[in-house]
Amino acid sequence: MIIDKQTLNHYESRYRAKLINSLAGMKQAVLVGTQSTDGQPNLTVFNSLIHIGANPPLWGIICRPDTVKRDTLDNILETGQYTLNYVQTGDFEKVHQTSAKYDQSVSEFEACGFTALYQADFHAPFVAEAPVKVAMKLEQKIDISINNTILIIGSIEQIELDESLISADGFVFLDQANLLACSGLDAYYEAHLIGRLSYATTDKWPTKLV
Amino acid sequence: MIIDKQTLNHYESRYRAKLINSLAGMKQAVLVGTQSTDGQPNLTVFNSLIHIGANPPLWGIICRPDTVKRDTLDNILETGQYTLNYVQTGDFEKVHQTSAKYDQSVSEFEACGFTALYQADFHAPFVAEAPVKVAMKLEQKIDISINNTILIIGSIEQIELDESLISADGFVFLDQANLLACSGLDAYYEAHLIGRLSYATTDKWPTKLV
Repeated sequence: MIIDKQTLNHYESRYRAKLINSLAGMKQAVLVGTQSTDGQPNLTVFNSLIHIGANPPLWGIICRPDTVKRDTLDNILETGQYTLNYVQTGDFEKVHQTSAKYDQSVSEFEACGFTALYQADFHAPFVAEAPVKVAMKLEQKIDISINNTILIIGSIEQIELDESLISADGFVFLDQANLLACSGLDAYYEAHLIGRLSYATTDKWPTKLV
Repeated sequence: MIIDKQTLNHYESRYRAKLINSLAGMKQAVLVGTQSTDGQPNLTVFNSLIHIGANPPLWGIICRPDTVKRDTLDNILETGQYTLNYVQTGDFEKVHQTSAKYDQSVSEFEACGFTALYQADFHAPFVAEAPVKVAMKLEQKIDISINNTILIIGSIEQIELDESLISADGFVFLDQANLLACSGLDAYYEAHLIGRLSYATTDKWPTKLV
């Protein structure tokens, strides 16, 4: 079927939101950990992690004021620190539960069954259960004027993961840790590697590396 | 293992690029179709599609001048139009081959084994083999000064997909079309739905919708 712009505009707003959000496809499910300046921890699931560059190592997340709880954004802007945590597929219900709109005084770590882990010299809490934990430092906030969303760009301060996940050339086999992927606001996936391919050149077809 | 910022900085640049890029996780593999003002079609794989908002329907892609061929970006900026095409897992080698640096006079559609499909009143070509085809109109170009990358924001002009993929509430079951996901610059995945969960509220645990 073909859905044109006029038809999209006339859809009921929640129907359109589910359609457009889920159609944007598969993403890593990422738990963002923060802590307010007065010590209140906060945890919420994001599906908008994007690679911005490797030198320096920069990643972005999109904050939509209408769907993302303000706590996380406020904490990032006030403290300049946040953590990104990838958890395993079996935890998908706990991950989803972090999207509930808990009062600011509630720690989603406790409410949803995760353990807050603190490291020296870093204000934001990690998820102890996460096989991949990344410490991020806020570098730039970009206002997207067209719909009042915000692109938060951070630099990677520290990565913690099992050494066996990293291949000789640097590639990280996230699927080997059975990590959770997601799409839209409520769907969760597991992913299986089809293969890695050799660097593409114009004179030959790519070959499978693994 | 823990990799701190200093260690990251000292890694060989290609090793670091593979590590940081693949660690950013799973994404939808998206073929971006464009056509230059003088009629040369162009096709290349992106792994950076992000949902920006549903009302109006806006999606973004990140263009990294160092890794993305300039043709695609130039065509988007000059014509204001591009297509996003999701293809099936069996096509992963053809998808990867679109990342080879072909001369500007070569159509990656032909070189990589895809069929360019034109629709009336739309300048950019679609991938005929793609179960999901989306026509995009350029809305905003945002320069990310911190590392000279570009966020291209477009609005959805038209969506084409099989009606059976859309559930009653608008959610799109992309996994039922067996669509390709990817991570980093060379790894391809297939995804399987674990489940959709009910809207999260603070007073109860989510339940499985499907």
